[in-house]
Amino acid sequence: MATTDLLRGNAVIGQSGGPTAVINQSLVGIVEGLRAGLHAAGYVSRILGMRHGVRGLTKGELIDLTDIHQDRLDRLASTPSAGLGSTRDKPDDAYCERVIEACRKQDARYFFYIGGNDSADTCRIVHERAVGSGYDLRCLHVPKTVDNDLVENDHCPGFASAARYVAMACMADFMDNISLPGIKINVIMGRHAGFLTAASALARRHDLLLTGRGEESTDGPQLIYVPEVPFEMERFVADVEGWYSRKGRCHIAVSEGIADSEGTPIGATLIEGAQVDAHGNVQLSGSGALGDQLADYLKERLTPVGGKPPRVRADTFGYVQRCWPHASPVDAREARRAGQFAAMLAMQGDRDGSVTIVRQGSGSEMWLGEDNGQPYLSTFRRVELREVAAKTRRMPDEFLAGHNNVSRAFVEYALPLVGELPGFERL
Amino acid sequence: MATTDLLRGNAVIGQSGGPTAVINQSLVGIVEGLRAGLHAAGYVSRILGMRHGVRGLTKGELIDLTDIHQDRLDRLASTPSAGLGSTRDKPDDAYCERVIEACRKQDARYFFYIGGNDSADTCRIVHERAVGSGYDLRCLHVPKTVDNDLVENDHCPGFASAARYVAMACMADFMDNISLPGIKINVIMGRHAGFLTAASALARRHDLLLTGRGEESTDGPQLIYVPEVPFEMERFVADVEGWYSRKGRCHIAVSEGIADSEGTPIGATLIEGAQVDAHGNVQLSGSGALGDQLADYLKERLTPVGGKPPRVRADTFGYVQRCWPHASPVDAREARRAGQFAAMLAMQGDRDGSVTIVRQGSGSEMWLGEDNGQPYLSTFRRVELREVAAKTRRMPDEFLAGHNNVSRAFVEYALPLVGELPGFERL
Repeated sequence: MATTDLLRGNAVIGQSGGPTAVINQSLVGIVEGLRAGLHAAGYVSRILGMRHGVRGLTKGELIDLTDIHQDRLDRLASTPSAGLGSTRDKPDDAYCERVIEACRKQDARYFFYIGGNDSADTCRIVHERAVGSGYDLRCLHVPKTVDNDLVENDHCPGFASAARYVAMACMADFMDNISLPGIKINVIMGRHAGFLTAASALARRHDLLLTGRGEESTDGPQLIYVPEVPFEMERFVADVEGWYSRKGRCHIAVSEGIADSEGTPIGATLIEGAQVDAHGNVQLSGSGALGDQLADYLKERLTPVGGKPPRVRADTFGYVQRCWPHASPVDAREARRAGQFAAMLAMQGDRDGSVTIVRQGSGSEMWLGEDNGQPYLSTFRRVELREVAAKTRRMPDEFLAGHNNVSRAFVEYALPLVGELPGFERL
Repeated sequence: MATTDLLRGNAVIGQSGGPTAVINQSLVGIVEGLRAGLHAAGYVSRILGMRHGVRGLTKGELIDLTDIHQDRLDRLASTPSAGLGSTRDKPDDAYCERVIEACRKQDARYFFYIGGNDSADTCRIVHERAVGSGYDLRCLHVPKTVDNDLVENDHCPGFASAARYVAMACMADFMDNISLPGIKINVIMGRHAGFLTAASALARRHDLLLTGRGEESTDGPQLIYVPEVPFEMERFVADVEGWYSRKGRCHIAVSEGIADSEGTPIGATLIEGAQVDAHGNVQLSGSGALGDQLADYLKERLTPVGGKPPRVRADTFGYVQRCWPHASPVDAREARRAGQFAAMLAMQGDRDGSVTIVRQGSGSEMWLGEDNGQPYLSTFRRVELREVAAKTRRMPDEFLAGHNNVSRAFVEYALPLVGELPGFERL
């Protein structure tokens, strides 16, 4: 595309939805990409950050990032959570008008929005309205979500770092579980998609390393429940009883989003005064209610072993899993490049679009050894906003194994993303 | 002491109580110390690990560690949780008889027990009974507890690693809290002592680095509640209201052990079917009940800001905080040396005793810069078992600041222990 097609003006960048460990990498990637491209070429004058997404934009709360020192950018990139502040606002018609009005006022011609499927939808709506009102505004979406539930993406920036935390926490907690046996439930984030809960399977290091098996592991977690499979309480009790009666212990990973056969999330009904955001999402996180309910149920229903009632404990991993400071190196790199790629699309003259991650190398050297396997590689491509906006990707069937486990295909998919995991010694 | 005073036989080593990230360092330290000392000198033939503490010893469940390869020992040392398995058994008279009988059967003359104040008490009782029954048994206790509540110790192995996790989790979670504002409660381990909850103050990096202030920080957590100060619900609501009405957000750290003015733990009464261990400790961990209760109470009582009810979330850090794989380097080193020191006491001919940590250098270079300050240094000394056994150290007054904060003295005490913390960039 000819550079004559490019607009002159400013760029605005926003972050939206739940923060991640690498969402600032994408912010920094966009700034770097703009500075090297449209800003250097004289098309973009100022690079402005929106405080708390579109909410700050409409209030004129902006931070000038144009000349921020690269050292600060580098530190910001490795800082978890949304450095600009985030929002869960969902712009309706009137809100959109204010967004476009704010863009006019700021002379913003490039609108970058980093977030999940709701944020892609915001980006799509803003672009449509801008076109409709005759204001030329380029709108680009950069993916981000620990839930890993954006369609068209092999995986999403933010997921791998959260998956790394989940895998390491489950590895360590399983050692705790065999040290002081009992039943342990860990509740992991994931509203509609079970990817993050499934990442608990990466904790089965002993079996993974020794046998390459992921499915019939005796390492914890032995049972994994994701939202893709309807959750049945009696079946759950029977599953746990099976392990507990044989081993005297059981290690369990449960998604916060597990739902009954009607699709009603079991956790949402348990939180007193559960809060609902502008996108209609009912609160699932920030409460231990689901884990406690499952633990209480097991205490009541399980057959005592050796005359003693079972020791049952439940932990809910909580917000730390999405913002733990030590990101996956692969994730950090890809999130940065996703931002740079969005800036490059703008430089190419693209009017709108969403950045997606495509896997090129399978990363099978994790299984087969460096010489025979294929190294992990990824690249980026642009898709239409409408292809990603407001759609939810769930775990494909080949990642599931029965109603309480994930497949080796999932482990092969996820392992190259999380970075090296520690090796534990067992006596 | 002359080596003629030394006994010939085997050594047994056990781990007891809640696991930590570095309890295996102490196990490995004892093995290394014995191999270099009593084993090399021909006094100790076999070095045996008890499976699940005294429980495994009485059942003859032992692992021979005498010839385990140093590479495996090194990997075991950096593996979190109790590699031998742990126990919460509290030996009564009959149990003690079985322990001593098992020692006779194994020809064990050296009994090493790694654990907290309950474990020190087990060590003391076993030694007394052995003496009483005419069986010469050397009994040494090696400290371990994330609660940091052993008397006679400047701090306890296990604490610093858990404190590091707590500090980093609070740093990251505070970034999350300013990104999507609201009220956030984090419930942190600590039954009677608030040290680990107090470590959340190390998360105030921005203020610590820029101003050296720890007490009047605006960084989170702004409010810290420890078991040493009676917890009053109405005062708590007023504290949160004060921050929330001014800032629209509030970041709070609460110990699981907070208790009312009668000393009754608030959390214990909330867990359905709360379980009690052999030492009489009521279950506080492995449930989100306390956090959820506090969150519900705030939702009901706080004045809405801008017509909206406050967004309140509660996370309970759970078992991951005591076994997160990346230990504090200081903690790992000290835990290893504490084990080696216990083996050295045995080599010196000590009949019993508890290893304690003494601080020599204040670590004030963290504040004053390397050239002017005093580097952090620690050493070890032996104290009588009865001085440590079954006693609980709580936070001294100088570590507290009012009813909802900790002092700069605490921050200066804890900072050198946790290792370098990440530096975050704020826009």
